[in-house]
Amino acid sequence: MLDKARQAGLHVVLVHHPVRSKTGETICSAVTNLDVHDIARTSRTFGAKGYYIVTTLEDQTVLTEKIVAHWTTGRGGQLNPARKEALGLVKIRQSLEEVVAEIAEASGRSPKVVVTSARRYPDALTFEKGRKVLCDGDPLVLVFGTAWGVTDEVIEQADHVLEPVDGGTDYNHLPVRAAVAIILDRLLGR
Amino acid sequence: MLDKARQAGLHVVLVHHPVRSKTGETICSAVTNLDVHDIARTSRTFGAKGYYIVTTLEDQTVLTEKIVAHWTTGRGGQLNPARKEALGLVKIRQSLEEVVAEIAEASGRSPKVVVTSARRYPDALTFEKGRKVLCDGDPLVLVFGTAWGVTDEVIEQADHVLEPVDGGTDYNHLPVRAAVAIILDRLLGR
Repeated sequence: MLDKARQAGLHVVLVHHPVRSKTGETICSAVTNLDVHDIARTSRTFGAKGYYIVTTLEDQTVLTEKIVAHWTTGRGGQLNPARKEALGLVKIRQSLEEVVAEIAEASGRSPKVVVTSARRYPDALTFEKGRKVLCDGDPLVLVFGTAWGVTDEVIEQADHVLEPVDGGTDYNHLPVRAAVAIILDRLLGR
Repeated sequence: MLDKARQAGLHVVLVHHPVRSKTGETICSAVTNLDVHDIARTSRTFGAKGYYIVTTLEDQTVLTEKIVAHWTTGRGGQLNPARKEALGLVKIRQSLEEVVAEIAEASGRSPKVVVTSARRYPDALTFEKGRKVLCDGDPLVLVFGTAWGVTDEVIEQADHVLEPVDGGTDYNHLPVRAAVAIILDRLLGR
């Protein structure tokens, strides 16, 4: 079942725009170097097909491409081939729509868009059902927001919102790097 | 069952000495700022009782205490109370033995030491059995190594070695921050 899920393809997307600021405004957050590395390594560990970083800022795009190039075509990758393999999954794009269109074109099938959230939405997709959706044969785009999460528009346009990770306490402030790790493990782990 | 497990107390320990270097030598690795934050937030999310950072280097101890103080007693904590709460779990100690002795004294019970590893050991503790060990009533010390992992001596002295996280691929290079998240979720998550 998991191999079937991996075959259809799960793609991780880390969105820096449009996301909400602390005060609720729509912003473009800054790319964090360790998000590039950690999420690439976790994605590779669980067999994700791609890891898209979405930002609209040109200087951030240039900077992130430089970081990735250091580890894929540059000196970093020569010294650390495992890191090269993980960072090879990274693509930087300007919008979630662009990511979805690209995956649809490459695979010939419309991907299902599943947005993650720290909030519990009515009719949220459970992890158990998420594993089943993965086996439907369509590619799956798994969206993570930075800052205070993706905007309501992104949530409304998605096919599903995934149920939040419940740590069993009143504390609901997981780092996005940890959320990606737990969610990929719950959806694709043995 | 999980509340019972939390009551006995799981303590996360991130070891910087003694760990192995790329070439197998015993070293003291450097403390990484994001390990302090991410693992504190993840520990708090899953209800861990403490998060110990082990280093023998005095300058690293001073630096790490400074970082933690900024978020617990300083300006950072005023601006971000959630971060203050997480970083409040952090204690910096010089050895794993010191951590174990401290927990034993505070709780009146000898803790079980469970070492995590990316390698599969014969008779490794499964996650299922790990959840049961947590319910035995003794505190549990969950050890994570930095760099190329803790030394063989640490492994030999532990009560158990936990089975590795299997992502279902040939890639076995999870960031320690991701490993902590997945392992706490598997042991304490709902």
